[in-house]
Amino acid sequence: MLPSAKVIHVDTRGAVILSEESPEARKHIKNGTRDSRGIYLPNYIEPVSHIAVDVGGSLAKVVYFTRSPDPPSSPSIIATRGSGTPSNLSSPSHTPPNESEAAAANHLSPSTSKRNGALTPLILGDPYTHTYPGNISQLTGLANGSLLRDTILRRTVQHFPGGSLNFERFETDSIDECVQFIQSLIERSAEVNGVSIEEMRKGVKIMATGGGAHKFYELFHDTLCVEVRREDEMECLIEGLKFITLIPDEVYYFSDELIQSVSQSGSSAVRVDGPGPSKLPAVAPNGVLERPSPNPPAYAVTFESNPTPQLPCLLVNIGSGVSLIKVDEDGKFERVSGTSLGGGTLWGLLSLLTPATTFDEMLAFSEKGDNATVDMLVGDIYGQDYSRLGLKSTMIASSFGKVFKKGGDKRQFSPEDISRSLLYAVSNNIGQIAYMNAEKYNLERIYFGGCFIRGHAATIGTLSYAIRFWSKGTKRALFLRHEGFLGSIGAWLKNIGPGEDEA
Amino acid sequence: MLPSAKVIHVDTRGAVILSEESPEARKHIKNGTRDSRGIYLPNYIEPVSHIAVDVGGSLAKVVYFTRSPDPPSSPSIIATRGSGTPSNLSSPSHTPPNESEAAAANHLSPSTSKRNGALTPLILGDPYTHTYPGNISQLTGLANGSLLRDTILRRTVQHFPGGSLNFERFETDSIDECVQFIQSLIERSAEVNGVSIEEMRKGVKIMATGGGAHKFYELFHDTLCVEVRREDEMECLIEGLKFITLIPDEVYYFSDELIQSVSQSGSSAVRVDGPGPSKLPAVAPNGVLERPSPNPPAYAVTFESNPTPQLPCLLVNIGSGVSLIKVDEDGKFERVSGTSLGGGTLWGLLSLLTPATTFDEMLAFSEKGDNATVDMLVGDIYGQDYSRLGLKSTMIASSFGKVFKKGGDKRQFSPEDISRSLLYAVSNNIGQIAYMNAEKYNLERIYFGGCFIRGHAATIGTLSYAIRFWSKGTKRALFLRHEGFLGSIGAWLKNIGPGEDEA
Repeated sequence: MLPSAKVIHVDTRGAVILSEESPEARKHIKNGTRDSRGIYLPNYIEPVSHIAVDVGGSLAKVVYFTRSPDPPSSPSIIATRGSGTPSNLSSPSHTPPNESEAAAANHLSPSTSKRNGALTPLILGDPYTHTYPGNISQLTGLANGSLLRDTILRRTVQHFPGGSLNFERFETDSIDECVQFIQSLIERSAEVNGVSIEEMRKGVKIMATGGGAHKFYELFHDTLCVEVRREDEMECLIEGLKFITLIPDEVYYFSDELIQSVSQSGSSAVRVDGPGPSKLPAVAPNGVLERPSPNPPAYAVTFESNPTPQLPCLLVNIGSGVSLIKVDEDGKFERVSGTSLGGGTLWGLLSLLTPATTFDEMLAFSEKGDNATVDMLVGDIYGQDYSRLGLKSTMIASSFGKVFKKGGDKRQFSPEDISRSLLYAVSNNIGQIAYMNAEKYNLERIYFGGCFIRGHAATIGTLSYAIRFWSKGTKRALFLRHEGFLGSIGAWLKNIGPGEDEA
Repeated sequence: MLPSAKVIHVDTRGAVILSEESPEARKHIKNGTRDSRGIYLPNYIEPVSHIAVDVGGSLAKVVYFTRSPDPPSSPSIIATRGSGTPSNLSSPSHTPPNESEAAAANHLSPSTSKRNGALTPLILGDPYTHTYPGNISQLTGLANGSLLRDTILRRTVQHFPGGSLNFERFETDSIDECVQFIQSLIERSAEVNGVSIEEMRKGVKIMATGGGAHKFYELFHDTLCVEVRREDEMECLIEGLKFITLIPDEVYYFSDELIQSVSQSGSSAVRVDGPGPSKLPAVAPNGVLERPSPNPPAYAVTFESNPTPQLPCLLVNIGSGVSLIKVDEDGKFERVSGTSLGGGTLWGLLSLLTPATTFDEMLAFSEKGDNATVDMLVGDIYGQDYSRLGLKSTMIASSFGKVFKKGGDKRQFSPEDISRSLLYAVSNNIGQIAYMNAEKYNLERIYFGGCFIRGHAATIGTLSYAIRFWSKGTKRALFLRHEGFLGSIGAWLKNIGPGEDEA
């Protein structure tokens, strides 16, 4: 998987959030799924360094930086073309450098590989917010064309020409492919730099996090023959979160109006069974009968375009399993809870109960399903609302509760209905546990990270409803475009900063 | 299902808790399962009244009282043979009355059916504890031979000869069978009383609770032609709980030593994946290598022989779905939470994923299973403990998390392993949500009710471990022999009390 290949694994945008109108972005937008945001591929593949990998139970997430002297020609970027010249670097050029210039500029020497040349991203001596621990720096190079770059650049001490964070994913079961990918990154880097592979390796460090950083340490280290640093998973998640939430339009959420308009009664009693094709919502307050579907304008989520500091908050990282981490206003964090009913549970159950063989197939099934054929609703038990307790008849009393009665004949239940029911069950449960912890620690903001959500409307909706339901609207579920890469971004960031060259 | 038949549905003991040695009990003990406690069947089937039914999503639970002038001849009962003579009743006799005496004693007249004759249980003018609402009375007739009877009898104003609460269960899907059963109870009662069915019906009232009390109201009312009173489900659960927890040996729990001895490390870090045949516990502190199994003496649960008032507490009622109800010290209650991941979910999933066709088969499968083949453990991700967070390698990181990787081929996973994994998943989750609510409301005692547990060791163990794990030992999971009948007992009790004869 070379970076220049038409990507298969990269299904998320680079750290530069391009405006949708940019020709650069349009070139790469895939059809249909929420994951197909514009991908900024640098015009010029520079040597890479600073590779980070987050190896979880199911997926290995890779992040690496590539430099591009020419930012993409999108309107927003042109308007805010970078400025500022670090004293000990060659000037950024707005025309593509020739090979020899590039080689000279990028010449690696171990002692300066972090500070000189084009291989390191911007280093801030002055963190963007005082809440950041001292060894975390901002990456302004990512912020070409965005509001972030403007604000951060004002504080720069040193900066480099723009570049991109690139993202790749592999199945942990195929960890060798991941290792080989990184190997090829390093080899290509040596080639472009005009140095030997041995020389290149001296300057490359892999920041590894997640459980697999420990489990596969020898594999990475012995195969790649580079330094591998193991970083704590929770720490990396939080660093990644703190960083990523500063990027405009990274964070998004369902608006209150959206949640309101799809609730069955139109009242503040929100359905936790979420929207579904068979559940016609009441006519919305504006008179329009709205239906949830993957890409209707009415259901566009709201993006956080002007991010403000997002702490304190609760991070709910949904991978194979789920970790809940509270983050204080000063950036201190603590893993306060978890649940084993996570993505791995849902995928595992659906792989046995439906013909689906991939996550996306399972989610596609769920979009067409009606959970009321397999779930036992309050109305099924009571014949009506349980009004004394405020339980609407459409609320789910028992997930999958209708299945056992029907004699256990699997053929009676469609994969679509089964998928929707279990998606709701897992999502509602995570939402409930998230809410309880947010309430316990008095946190209003609840971020959902991890590879589980994948921009899927029903999942986002269910989590949003659950938080709103339990909190009576006082708390908000927030989602991230780069949800699956928090740990790897955080690990990558930990490689940057003053005083990093300790032995 | 006539009460005198060798019972099929009655799988729990009568409200008289017989000592295990009593010949009466031994006659009826079934093999193998925890549910087979001694069943006290009255020597003499008296006319019944005061029938209560709790119709839930899956099961309809029936409770009815029968009088027996001769308590069973068990040692403990003989020693505490009843005393006290109500002023307006015939004296209790220790020899079986002849037919005509019985008929005379039991003659029904509408105005006195509650106060005279043998059809009503004991009524206390002075509740056992001041925390009871005024209209709830104790049933001392149940307490033949038990400590409860001794204590309550001292406070009696009126009492009747002993009798029993009888229990029956039906599938809600076969609600007609339940109705027919009650019909036959009433017919038999009329017969024994020597009255017409129409006359009998005037004196019979059915107290109905659960969702089905509303859904099936007409069915009960029109078929049986008796008064049917609908009672709130939550109220009945709590009344039943308050009553039942006073009976000696009703409440039981896993001792701390038991929990300690089966934890993997023998330390205070308790495994939440519970014991399993493939998980050999470390040698216990006493040097004995203990293994969990259904009936070893070492794993006998601890019974609460001297119950003290049990409020405040949290009741977790696990039926098809789960309700969590907090009960204050003064008996006031509030349903504070719930989850749709309950018994219905587990049975539904296992009915599709295994060959099992009954709950008991599913539980039997789970006893032989090893969840580590389908669950992703912390050790699978990390290769070791995640010691920084105190997460042992044997802890479950992702339930069912190994299933998706293996290509989705269902045949690779045994029904035993699948059953154990999902039993743990559902139980651990309920335990976690229960703990969080107990913590929120500062409650130490957590009672588990509902038909889910069925005295199954792995389930009890998992719930106990989960509470202990999350609470660090400060809270306790408590279980009830009559777990599934709280609502029906509560409904039944609501029929008793001064001033009940309002129109």
